[in-house]
Amino acid sequence: MPTAERTASRRKPSPKIANQWLRQILSLLYRRRSLSRIEIVETTGLNAASASHALRYLLNRGLLLRSADRNQITFRDREVFTLNAEAGYFVAIDLEGDRLRFGLTNLLGDIRCRWEECLEYGQPFAPKKVVEGIDRVTRDLDSTQLGRVLAVGVSFPGLLDAEGCLSAVNLGWTKVPLLAALRQEFPWPVFFERDKETCIHAENWLGAAQNCRNALFLIAEGGIGMGMLEGGKQLLGARGFSGEIGHCKFIPGAEDLCNCGQRGCLEAIASSPNIIRQYAERTGAAPAELHFADVLERARRGDAIALSVFERAGRAIGSALSTAISLLDPEIVILGGDLILAEDIMLPIIWDQIRLMTRPRSLEVVQIVVSRLGFDIRLKGAASLAFQYMLEAPELVQRLCAPARDAAPALDRRPGPRAMRER
Amino acid sequence: MPTAERTASRRKPSPKIANQWLRQILSLLYRRRSLSRIEIVETTGLNAASASHALRYLLNRGLLLRSADRNQITFRDREVFTLNAEAGYFVAIDLEGDRLRFGLTNLLGDIRCRWEECLEYGQPFAPKKVVEGIDRVTRDLDSTQLGRVLAVGVSFPGLLDAEGCLSAVNLGWTKVPLLAALRQEFPWPVFFERDKETCIHAENWLGAAQNCRNALFLIAEGGIGMGMLEGGKQLLGARGFSGEIGHCKFIPGAEDLCNCGQRGCLEAIASSPNIIRQYAERTGAAPAELHFADVLERARRGDAIALSVFERAGRAIGSALSTAISLLDPEIVILGGDLILAEDIMLPIIWDQIRLMTRPRSLEVVQIVVSRLGFDIRLKGAASLAFQYMLEAPELVQRLCAPARDAAPALDRRPGPRAMRER
Repeated sequence: MPTAERTASRRKPSPKIANQWLRQILSLLYRRRSLSRIEIVETTGLNAASASHALRYLLNRGLLLRSADRNQITFRDREVFTLNAEAGYFVAIDLEGDRLRFGLTNLLGDIRCRWEECLEYGQPFAPKKVVEGIDRVTRDLDSTQLGRVLAVGVSFPGLLDAEGCLSAVNLGWTKVPLLAALRQEFPWPVFFERDKETCIHAENWLGAAQNCRNALFLIAEGGIGMGMLEGGKQLLGARGFSGEIGHCKFIPGAEDLCNCGQRGCLEAIASSPNIIRQYAERTGAAPAELHFADVLERARRGDAIALSVFERAGRAIGSALSTAISLLDPEIVILGGDLILAEDIMLPIIWDQIRLMTRPRSLEVVQIVVSRLGFDIRLKGAASLAFQYMLEAPELVQRLCAPARDAAPALDRRPGPRAMRER
Repeated sequence: MPTAERTASRRKPSPKIANQWLRQILSLLYRRRSLSRIEIVETTGLNAASASHALRYLLNRGLLLRSADRNQITFRDREVFTLNAEAGYFVAIDLEGDRLRFGLTNLLGDIRCRWEECLEYGQPFAPKKVVEGIDRVTRDLDSTQLGRVLAVGVSFPGLLDAEGCLSAVNLGWTKVPLLAALRQEFPWPVFFERDKETCIHAENWLGAAQNCRNALFLIAEGGIGMGMLEGGKQLLGARGFSGEIGHCKFIPGAEDLCNCGQRGCLEAIASSPNIIRQYAERTGAAPAELHFADVLERARRGDAIALSVFERAGRAIGSALSTAISLLDPEIVILGGDLILAEDIMLPIIWDQIRLMTRPRSLEVVQIVVSRLGFDIRLKGAASLAFQYMLEAPELVQRLCAPARDAAPALDRRPGPRAMRER
């Protein structure tokens, strides 16, 4: 399109301003997917000429698609702009759970390629397997597509230090220099986020919290944690240690020993391994031979011991949510992890406990739902995170818009609480 | 200063841009009080010429004071700019407690004039007394000073609806049209904020949370509530109902009846009237004849019943704070209300309970202190709030900078959760 190209270059505004316009429009379409020209102008607050210029630029670069849509009230055709899903890709990595996941997602969060690696119980996971996982999900891309890979998003458990070294119990890792390893092997910027945060990112982008600005995500599987969104922003705390609800006590006097060394933590009562442990202790079964799904199945068949273990766990989770709802006044609470499997058994107990414990005024609007994003939730969250951070970095927006994208900048950052706060 | 004035008018930029520069500089000085020219340029990100222009404008209007300060390293003099405390005034109103307070504060939050009105127990408070209170604190101002009154900030208990009607149990009010009454009598814009929020505003402006971006404020007196700051912004929740920690349950099975109709709420165990009630129930004393200070004094003298009542209240508050700290990872927790009086008795119990209940990692950095802002905390918070909202409204910044300020705009707004979020 030589004409359009010429027009674009003749009217080219100063790079700094133009970058800001592009970011505003891309950020809006990241969230809303598809919008008319008027909606874009109104929502971004750009003037019509700037918006037109930026839209033309993005169309020419293949980042947007344009279609016509008839307004049902005025019967006039209007232009609708949609993000071109395949204009860019993210590598998403989920290091939590007993099965590590690697994915390649497009700009709409659809997973285009996937690879999984099982953790062997008690065996440390070799860090080079992460590099291998990324290789697996990108190896079938041709050079054009490879040039469109924009960034890597990593959902991590445990603690990441300022140098990008990760310590995580489930991986058997102590200060493994993951960032350095990825930086050495791949040209893409890498963004890290804690697992609880990637879940709420995913729900906010593609799930139940899409139109919410105040949401909570409670994840209960190997551990228990909470991701929190207020006014559309994550609550990370002063050091990024927020959401530690798994180590609060809601059943006083409970003697259940937690991984953290304390007794009676929510996690020691309601996490999946502890549900198995309690059932095994009371029935004399060997915990190593039981799965969460077995205990759940027995509860469904009316096994009184299994039911009472779930009852205790559900009451503890309900008490925790009651406190979080009273404190934070969310619109929605989303339950994830193994609570998704146990929805039929746990949700009624959780709701009952919440109603028992909470002032009715605090419950007037809040919804409690189970996540529908499935096992890919953290992959999608990691991609969402990478997309968001990319939109905040002018040099990465430039890269996204560059016609040839074989060279990649060497930019790495771990979005710590400071970076998040500066958004 | 005719020369300076001429210079200012010759270089006058477009009003919109200039207003933004003024707001940036005033917002910075609101928070930091006094800064050098270089610090202002660096922190606002303005270019040196814009900053100079705006500083000259503000100096000419009498809003800033300039002084010289010798840098102790380079031994060079540098210009220091300070907010002129008396360049503007706020009317601050605190409708909580058994003594309603009215104050006139300057731009630094110093209270220049004050008026108090006692509530008669069980008697509704006449709304016109609020008008009278404002009259009392502004009646001694001359016309120039009166022209410098910028806004009214109101710290309110209870519920304020969208029309500005207030319902508050302690005032005996149901849907009293307070905003309309103030609007009819006074020319100033009126800003409302819940009492928990004004407390944390005050601490963030003038108190223990001055340099903090993540802070909690627990107030325990007639009721118990929590104000929360994350990343420098208040957490208000989806409907502005956040911080309801007083109605969470931390002592399971507790039968104490709360004002909200539920049993076992934190407020029913640890608020001042309930501390008196528990002491009276166990000693057979008449609660009407006891004050909080009496029970406290008896505890100090070693009265076992008084001590055990404080022990129970302190444990409940400690459990509540443990959960809030684990969830929100604050830098500081500030205790206010009657906890200030009871610091010697309560703080050790609260700390002990927090240590018992919380994962050590969550406690690594957090400080727990008692508020030092005294009884004026909500007045100062209301003034802080009025100042902040004023700085966000271009027309009010214009008014602050106007040389003659006898006419006032008719602008009223209640900063609900939406308005707060849009900051």
